[in-house]
Amino acid sequence: MLQLLIGNKNYSSWSLRPWLALHGLGIAFEEVPLRFDGFGMDAQFKQRLRRFTPSGKVPVLVLDGVAVWDSLAIAETLAEAFPHAGVWPGAPAERAQARGLCADIHSGFTALRQHCPMNVGARLPAVGARVWQEQADLREDVHHLLERCASLLQDSSGPMLFGAFGMADAYLAPVWLRLQTYALPCAMPASVQAYVQRVLALPALQQWCADAAAENDFVPFLEPYRSGPTLPE
Amino acid sequence: MLQLLIGNKNYSSWSLRPWLALHGLGIAFEEVPLRFDGFGMDAQFKQRLRRFTPSGKVPVLVLDGVAVWDSLAIAETLAEAFPHAGVWPGAPAERAQARGLCADIHSGFTALRQHCPMNVGARLPAVGARVWQEQADLREDVHHLLERCASLLQDSSGPMLFGAFGMADAYLAPVWLRLQTYALPCAMPASVQAYVQRVLALPALQQWCADAAAENDFVPFLEPYRSGPTLPE
Ligand SMILES: N[C@@H](CCC(=O)N[C@@H](CS)C(=O)NCC(=O)O)C(=O)O
Ligand SMILES: N[C@@H](CCC(=O)N[C@@H](CS)C(=O)NCC(=O)O)C(=O)O
Repeated sequence: MLQLLIGNKNYSSWSLRPWLALHGLGIAFEEVPLRFDGFGMDAQFKQRLRRFTPSGKVPVLVLDGVAVWDSLAIAETLAEAFPHAGVWPGAPAERAQARGLCADIHSGFTALRQHCPMNVGARLPAVGARVWQEQADLREDVHHLLERCASLLQDSSGPMLFGAFGMADAYLAPVWLRLQTYALPCAMPASVQAYVQRVLALPALQQWCADAAAENDFVPFLEPYRSGPTLPE
Repeated sequence: MLQLLIGNKNYSSWSLRPWLALHGLGIAFEEVPLRFDGFGMDAQFKQRLRRFTPSGKVPVLVLDGVAVWDSLAIAETLAEAFPHAGVWPGAPAERAQARGLCADIHSGFTALRQHCPMNVGARLPAVGARVWQEQADLREDVHHLLERCASLLQDSSGPMLFGAFGMADAYLAPVWLRLQTYALPCAMPASVQAYVQRVLALPALQQWCADAAAENDFVPFLEPYRSGPTLPE
């Protein structure tokens, strides 16, 4: 049996990725929620994670008693364990594109992550408008991602980035939630807009968002802009 | 035939990783050096990369005509294409550890990367002493990595992190070169010290360092500390 350790659904973008992938690919698993009570050494969160991963971060997958951490290592482990599930596209050229996209997200787009931390339930257009204006690297991150998506969708047989739903779609999902939360005024190509609507309509993603809302767990240290210079609406 | 596109050997830590892995695992490939003339859109470097990857970064592997970019995607592609080469350890628990370590390096340790950019041929102990004193997150990065290595070596049958040489050893190699360049005054457990010596003695790594020295190509924009407050020795 598979287990997936995740953080607060409202905040944990890295947890969302494998969670959504598992659901979207139809791989059964048990969800183990760990609350973000803090990221300090003495936090319950860290204590509970300790025996699973030296990284001290979620997500962690437990497969046949082996703890696999980091969303990208989880992706590859799933691809290995479920070779017919469609984690990655079957054709080598598309597989390379999908892996490259996920790896780029994994190691980059730091401005988007820093200035627009995931906050599923919140609507913060004033924060979004401010950071969009102030942060050139944020605008660059978003433009670059939208361009990449548009180009992939052009070559895709649809409805997702590489035909059927796969890890790359799951990896991008937090981006669409961020655009929603912060109402970033980016120009979105029509093809990407339609794709984003299809992703947001996925039953599993809807479920995640509903679960996030039901948490009702405001974690101040993950919402730094609440005490920022501009009070959000 | 495999091709690997790489940057300047003196500076490109991400290029070193798959290059060293290919050599260390005995997989034949052709090396395609791209000079770091700049990272702006109009740089030759970017122009030449354009048709291979939308990330605009090295390394890129070309396998059977398919361009695979990002060092981690390259690692997984090699593991797939050469399942018996030993890219990852064979045992699931060790494979998870190796993947997790590489993924953590891929997405983190930003202080070490930022304050001690790879510079194979240089010896910059004064810069190292300064950043070591000033940057708590750098000290944390290094301590955490040394701890991780010590713990893995304790469980390893040797001589490398997971028995025989593999991707995890290649992924860490730039760290040891940095410690050398900046002479960071970190306390290194004896087991790690011995391991680092074994890695630095690998013929392939020696070759990389000799090639780096032979480049004789000073790239000012990759050596920001040269114009910093303290003049390096
Ligand atoms: N590279 C990791 C990132 C994981 C990550 O940053 N997780 C956050 C929650 S979304 C976390 O657990 N943070 C705890 C901390 O930073 O101490 C992955 O891809 O899984
Ligand atoms: N996540 C990438 C990072 C690659 C990377 O940053 N490469 C550097 C050279 S070491 C580069 O090409 N930089 C060009 C740029 O930043 O524009 C990987 O793992 O391959």
